[in-house]
Amino acid sequence: MLRRHLSLQPDTDSDAPPLRIDQLETPAALVDLDILAQNLDRMAEYSALHGFALRPHVKTHKSPRIAAEQLRLGAVGLTCATPRELEVMADVTRDLVLAYPLLGAAKLARALSLPAEVQLTVAVDSMIAVDALAATARVVDRPVQVYVELDMGMHRVGVQRVDDAIALAMRVQEQPPLTFAGIMFYPGHIREPVGEQDAKLEQLRTDLSLALARMEDAGVRPGVVSGGSTPAAWRMHEIPGVTEVRPGTYVYNDRTTAEIGACAWEDCAFTVLATVVSTAVEGQAVVDAGCKALGREPVRGASGEGYAAMLDRPEVTVQRMSEEHGILDLSRTSWRPRVGDQVRLVPNHVCIVVHLNDVIHGVRRNIVESHWPVSARGR
Amino acid sequence: MLRRHLSLQPDTDSDAPPLRIDQLETPAALVDLDILAQNLDRMAEYSALHGFALRPHVKTHKSPRIAAEQLRLGAVGLTCATPRELEVMADVTRDLVLAYPLLGAAKLARALSLPAEVQLTVAVDSMIAVDALAATARVVDRPVQVYVELDMGMHRVGVQRVDDAIALAMRVQEQPPLTFAGIMFYPGHIREPVGEQDAKLEQLRTDLSLALARMEDAGVRPGVVSGGSTPAAWRMHEIPGVTEVRPGTYVYNDRTTAEIGACAWEDCAFTVLATVVSTAVEGQAVVDAGCKALGREPVRGASGEGYAAMLDRPEVTVQRMSEEHGILDLSRTSWRPRVGDQVRLVPNHVCIVVHLNDVIHGVRRNIVESHWPVSARGR
Repeated sequence: MLRRHLSLQPDTDSDAPPLRIDQLETPAALVDLDILAQNLDRMAEYSALHGFALRPHVKTHKSPRIAAEQLRLGAVGLTCATPRELEVMADVTRDLVLAYPLLGAAKLARALSLPAEVQLTVAVDSMIAVDALAATARVVDRPVQVYVELDMGMHRVGVQRVDDAIALAMRVQEQPPLTFAGIMFYPGHIREPVGEQDAKLEQLRTDLSLALARMEDAGVRPGVVSGGSTPAAWRMHEIPGVTEVRPGTYVYNDRTTAEIGACAWEDCAFTVLATVVSTAVEGQAVVDAGCKALGREPVRGASGEGYAAMLDRPEVTVQRMSEEHGILDLSRTSWRPRVGDQVRLVPNHVCIVVHLNDVIHGVRRNIVESHWPVSARGR
Repeated sequence: MLRRHLSLQPDTDSDAPPLRIDQLETPAALVDLDILAQNLDRMAEYSALHGFALRPHVKTHKSPRIAAEQLRLGAVGLTCATPRELEVMADVTRDLVLAYPLLGAAKLARALSLPAEVQLTVAVDSMIAVDALAATARVVDRPVQVYVELDMGMHRVGVQRVDDAIALAMRVQEQPPLTFAGIMFYPGHIREPVGEQDAKLEQLRTDLSLALARMEDAGVRPGVVSGGSTPAAWRMHEIPGVTEVRPGTYVYNDRTTAEIGACAWEDCAFTVLATVVSTAVEGQAVVDAGCKALGREPVRGASGEGYAAMLDRPEVTVQRMSEEHGILDLSRTSWRPRVGDQVRLVPNHVCIVVHLNDVIHGVRRNIVESHWPVSARGR
């Protein structure tokens, strides 16, 4: 299967001796290429099986190399959160959704100056955003598709009432070169362990059916109904009406995704390689990955202490951190590392950790096969 | 006073109209240049008054421009945590301390390949680190000074017993081209509000006197006794024996520093500029600065909810975050922002936020005067 993943092949076929993981300077971000390939395949197959348009969110990897692989495996386009992500991803697709309200003159001008051949879709939840988008689109004479974002329980952004969604869709239709393309929701509130999501999924089913029926009655039938996110991705086929999914985390996975059962521990492709730098204080070991390398994200929607866990000893967690220090809790293990030993840590929330790195190392077993930049990091 | 700060002057004197803050794309990192200048002066004056060698930690700003200003105001050299920080700061000083255990062949080789005219000092807390440092220093024939790090209550790194410090110092002395230069401690456990630090300071005084006396008796008298950190910096003159301080955060300050009383709210030079992107959910407003722009650091050692507070309305805090969304809690204010409004947010822990940015904008009132790269960010 792996031979299919052309863009994940080694950087060169030179005769230089292979670089081993233990030769890397730490902290370093590693991605297991075999696991990555499996993760990419699994979501592509799930989406194809259920007839979803797969539009992965690039926030997790911020890499055109990974995005190109997602597209080659059948993704219809990509989802972005920032102007920088749009610009970088315009190199690999002509179909981009900005799943984020586009406000501010500088940001509007930047997003709408993407190459003309890129079909841009922007999500909105306010009249102010629609009117600002329409005004700029008219000035630069660029067609822009619009998704109206509905809040389906996350209570972050998204209109609260179907009437507001209808009003926004109509306002969009009145303002060429905007066109109303569909609705979008982010079910980020569904973070329970996979087996305990039933009640929230039932509510989502009910609310979405009602919204779709009322919008159809009002003459603003959404062509696209865009949902999905990794924690609930595998159950999106249970929600009638959904036509598109936008998962991001599934490419690498992380400790939270494994804890809620949306992947197995063995599906975690991303680790931070770190070195034990001190064992001076009893009962702990200090590694050179602190919150500037691991972030400080909790495990969400599930139990799990600390900020990361060792790949091959998940009972050993990073319990405290300073900026460049991570403190391993050795209370649940008889393992005692030596100063200079390397460890591989699975972070709680991989998207945040990728954003802390400039380069990712692609590995197979203990060999470093490739490197790629986190090109869409930054602003 | 501000005219003294030559390196903080506007980038150009061109006739182009000045850039206003409200023209910046958000999120953006801003530093108020007047407040920065005051903060730099205050610490330089405190150190001079008490005869301390000031060796600021660059982890906060990661900028040779700010470092050059610290040196011009009297700093004897700089403190770094990573090889990248050493490399970048070697452009502005010949006196660098790596206040971090140096382990791993790749990292050792990199640190010891700094330009030969740079005097490098490395902190250690293990025989393994001393021996590895000595071996590499011999191979590249480079003199390296060593600080032995003692744990004075932080329980992170640092030897636990004075006997161990003496043994490490002796081991250093036996291994040219290493030389024993002194001891270092990081009083990061002293994070109480400034008025409540007495008990811990008393303990520190006692422990340090004892350590110094015993080391002197053993014939390894430390030439340098390096302490300090912003939260306890203003009380370091109460600790006899300290010759050097290494504060970092004081240049910009942050919400935590203000909450514990180590600076005033008006001394917070650093803010994240953000735009209100949604008010769709009642009682809150969403801004385009989430944990990829603000970090997810708690207020430490003091009360204070949330992850950042508005500069001009500190009662309004960022209460929840996603990667690119920050949710303002409006429950303690009658202020109701509109979509498109800009806000300035003081983060809980500025060092983490600087590390998330590539560029800092220097501002005075509502004008953007300069920009500088976070050159020592990354690895």
